[in-house]
Amino acid sequence: MKGLMMDYQLTIPTIMRRAESLFSHKEIVTRLPDKRIHRYTYKDFSLRVKRLATALTELGVEKGDRIATLSWNHHQHLEAYFAVPSIGAVVHPLNIRLNHDDLSYIVNHAEDKVLVVDQVLLPLFEKFRSSVNSSRVIVIPQTNEAIPDGYLNYEQVVDSGDASKFKPFEEDEYAAAFMCYTSGTTGKPKGVLYSHRSVVLHAMAFMFSCGDVGVNERDVLLPVVPMFHACAWGLPYTCTFTGATQVFPGPYLDADNLISLFEKERVTITAGVPTVMLGLLNRLDADPVNHDLALHTMILGGSAMPRHLVKAFDERYGIRVLHSWGMTEMSPLGATSVTTSKLSNEDKETQYDYAIKQGLPVPFVETRGRDDSGELIPRNGIAMGELEVRGPWIISSYYKDQSREKFTDDGWFKTGDIVTIDHDGFIEIKDRSKDVIKSGGEWISSLALENALMGHPAVLEAAVIAIPDEKWIERPFAYVVLREGQSVTSRELIEFLSGMFAKFWLPDECEFIDAIPRTSVGKFLKSALRERHAKR
Amino acid sequence: MKGLMMDYQLTIPTIMRRAESLFSHKEIVTRLPDKRIHRYTYKDFSLRVKRLATALTELGVEKGDRIATLSWNHHQHLEAYFAVPSIGAVVHPLNIRLNHDDLSYIVNHAEDKVLVVDQVLLPLFEKFRSSVNSSRVIVIPQTNEAIPDGYLNYEQVVDSGDASKFKPFEEDEYAAAFMCYTSGTTGKPKGVLYSHRSVVLHAMAFMFSCGDVGVNERDVLLPVVPMFHACAWGLPYTCTFTGATQVFPGPYLDADNLISLFEKERVTITAGVPTVMLGLLNRLDADPVNHDLALHTMILGGSAMPRHLVKAFDERYGIRVLHSWGMTEMSPLGATSVTTSKLSNEDKETQYDYAIKQGLPVPFVETRGRDDSGELIPRNGIAMGELEVRGPWIISSYYKDQSREKFTDDGWFKTGDIVTIDHDGFIEIKDRSKDVIKSGGEWISSLALENALMGHPAVLEAAVIAIPDEKWIERPFAYVVLREGQSVTSRELIEFLSGMFAKFWLPDECEFIDAIPRTSVGKFLKSALRERHAKR
Repeated sequence: MKGLMMDYQLTIPTIMRRAESLFSHKEIVTRLPDKRIHRYTYKDFSLRVKRLATALTELGVEKGDRIATLSWNHHQHLEAYFAVPSIGAVVHPLNIRLNHDDLSYIVNHAEDKVLVVDQVLLPLFEKFRSSVNSSRVIVIPQTNEAIPDGYLNYEQVVDSGDASKFKPFEEDEYAAAFMCYTSGTTGKPKGVLYSHRSVVLHAMAFMFSCGDVGVNERDVLLPVVPMFHACAWGLPYTCTFTGATQVFPGPYLDADNLISLFEKERVTITAGVPTVMLGLLNRLDADPVNHDLALHTMILGGSAMPRHLVKAFDERYGIRVLHSWGMTEMSPLGATSVTTSKLSNEDKETQYDYAIKQGLPVPFVETRGRDDSGELIPRNGIAMGELEVRGPWIISSYYKDQSREKFTDDGWFKTGDIVTIDHDGFIEIKDRSKDVIKSGGEWISSLALENALMGHPAVLEAAVIAIPDEKWIERPFAYVVLREGQSVTSRELIEFLSGMFAKFWLPDECEFIDAIPRTSVGKFLKSALRERHAKR
Repeated sequence: MKGLMMDYQLTIPTIMRRAESLFSHKEIVTRLPDKRIHRYTYKDFSLRVKRLATALTELGVEKGDRIATLSWNHHQHLEAYFAVPSIGAVVHPLNIRLNHDDLSYIVNHAEDKVLVVDQVLLPLFEKFRSSVNSSRVIVIPQTNEAIPDGYLNYEQVVDSGDASKFKPFEEDEYAAAFMCYTSGTTGKPKGVLYSHRSVVLHAMAFMFSCGDVGVNERDVLLPVVPMFHACAWGLPYTCTFTGATQVFPGPYLDADNLISLFEKERVTITAGVPTVMLGLLNRLDADPVNHDLALHTMILGGSAMPRHLVKAFDERYGIRVLHSWGMTEMSPLGATSVTTSKLSNEDKETQYDYAIKQGLPVPFVETRGRDDSGELIPRNGIAMGELEVRGPWIISSYYKDQSREKFTDDGWFKTGDIVTIDHDGFIEIKDRSKDVIKSGGEWISSLALENALMGHPAVLEAAVIAIPDEKWIERPFAYVVLREGQSVTSRELIEFLSGMFAKFWLPDECEFIDAIPRTSVGKFLKSALRERHAKR
């Protein structure tokens, strides 16, 4: 027997309609490439979204077509986030930090029909333009220079639209709406295809106060996390849904420009990777009294979380640092380092210890850990296993890809993260599954060894890999980059570690190198180190 | 083109699984009929839910079957809330405040297969037992007396279940899960059939901080609103989803018992009708220093909101009173009187003015007002129209009822409330559509006149109805109940009103009566007054 509730499809136009209906006077603010501040209201925004949507239809965009963007965080990018899915097409932001071979591969693999490109990013686009098949390119004018021949002018496209002809796509929440490619460290980038349903349900995740964020209409949110990376964590949709003021930094992500925007626009929440926030902290600390911030929360994610950052922002500036964890395959939000009722009774130092964990899964995300033999790991905070997840905004398969190695037989997604889960459900990532070292039947966390090595005063960077071993199958081996002017021996470093780990965890050797090889998005490229070691 | 996200159905077992997985140590507390405090954990709770679910299957309960409850707010009622939908059946709480003719009509109309009845409510059940066809009755033991012959013992039923055989219903979020009947003032009660999807999506609504509630795991929530009325506003599902501690008052809803539970269990949020909270306020005011409350929020709804209550709780006890508005047909939450960014810059008195309005619709609920001619009313806070709503947890049709008069041609639900909507989207109810007085082409709010009359020191109660008029079609007419020992004339009352309303709003006459006739749930029965006037 079916329930007798309305068939109300959860599509992206419902988000925009709410903003238009209730928050028409609220503002969307952008720092333009020429540094001027552009501001308009949700009313202006929704009118332009409708014009862009109908103009795209006139240009021949049909349901299911992919429309790529090559853009910084700004109001026109937000317009594309809404206009494209509003006509049943799929908006597909390109990660400008990928190399141009990857970018052309992605555009051709996604078969993007139209590209929307920032004028200031045309030099990047020109590098791969000749190798992509997209029929139309729309350029967002941002400088005094003319838009080159052969390109459409974004503002003229918007002006050509007729808002009265706007017909929002509402027929099927399972239809595709948004697309991201992973910047995989191994193999080709892979496409993740989100549905209207997953985008809308995920937009709620940051509205839940039980995730300790709870974006609401009174908030002013500045996403440092790029809209070309994992949908800026979905925050543009969350903010539009709640009517929060949105502030976009454009191309200016340095500490000085961010702090001035925080101050002038009374930003209350920001979100980004720890590296950026570390830069902010240093800038603030250089002149701590001369800042007037309204920030109450920083959502940090994307890499391991330095404990001193949480402590410093809390103690010195009264800003709550909320660690959140996710993956492109998860829309991306999976977990947040919430302060539970139990934790709220602990002292500050214990709270900081928990703040750097990955935390508790958000509602609608289920988690479990499984070891090598497929057994569920106990929730004791010690046993390590690969984290598996499921939920309504988690991938079921990659785009145009039949491979099933990332999925379990019962349909869960294998994150590739090696974790412990404690008895309260707190997840803590210990390693990546391809990096964890399986030695004599036990697992050794390369990440834990690296972090410990990087705690040595002479060490700038360290990467630990598994090397083959006849007796133990695998053994840990460390590559170390020394700080300038410092010196230390392999034996001294291993002695340094011996106080912190069981004996069988200690690397057999540390080798000193000039730099750790990295991927185009800055992650350690351990496969290169494994190849290097194999050639020894 | 479909998105490539998991097919994760939003069913009620996903809520319980979250509590079991993450909040197993958190407590559910009940004041039993014998006044003892019962407490157990979510771990105990979920084990018993699984046992009850499998036991019900053994008893022959099948998917789609309706299982009624006749129960106060307590942990066993919560178990039924989860166990019944967990096997694909429909849990159907009966409103114990209805008269027994209505109750037997409802049980037979719903075709409830099993009834779960509080032992302390058996005297009520005996009044309509002979007129209902349900095959099985399960009694929750609550006193030292034996369960009468012919009834099953709830605890024995739970004990007979086998948790290891539990198979949660997850196949279709559109399947029916929960049922409520309206206590309509006209005609027979009507059934509202909620789906798993609507229950789960609605459970989120109270987790949104943008609704100014934001229940989270650190909260301790005591619902005074009965679980037999509009699903206790969905709070039992919200709390289980977030892991909030739940405190159930059992049959003891008087101020002294509530205050002692608030204090002992460190309750942070409560929810109920203004009348109950008024009783609380009086009790607290009688001895204001000797209370130690942890309450930060009171969610109030179900009838008009007295402004002085908001002000008193805020000023004297630092408790935020949040007015929320909804209907059984809306699961029930529709709107909350949020403090917007604009309002937060206003003075306290202005904030109180807004706090008693119905407020802004919650995310996923869309609203519009339409006048007699079907035109949308302007959002100016002046024009009156009937409020129409749509959203994923709003009724599409009544159970076993083909009538369409409550639905528009384009599928919106007609609330029957006459409202204004201001330019910020705030809804304010002015009347019920069947009570609004249509005089000479203008609408007159009977509610506004009643409230004004009840502001006169001599008046205890007043009800204003429309009477037929040859020239103006309808004119207002007031029935007034005087306070004991007070006197006033019809002319004096009309003069009293003349300073507050336009001349054409003033009632032609006030007639004095001993009591306003009421429905079984205490609402004014204006149809009886109209009949009375017709016989003059």
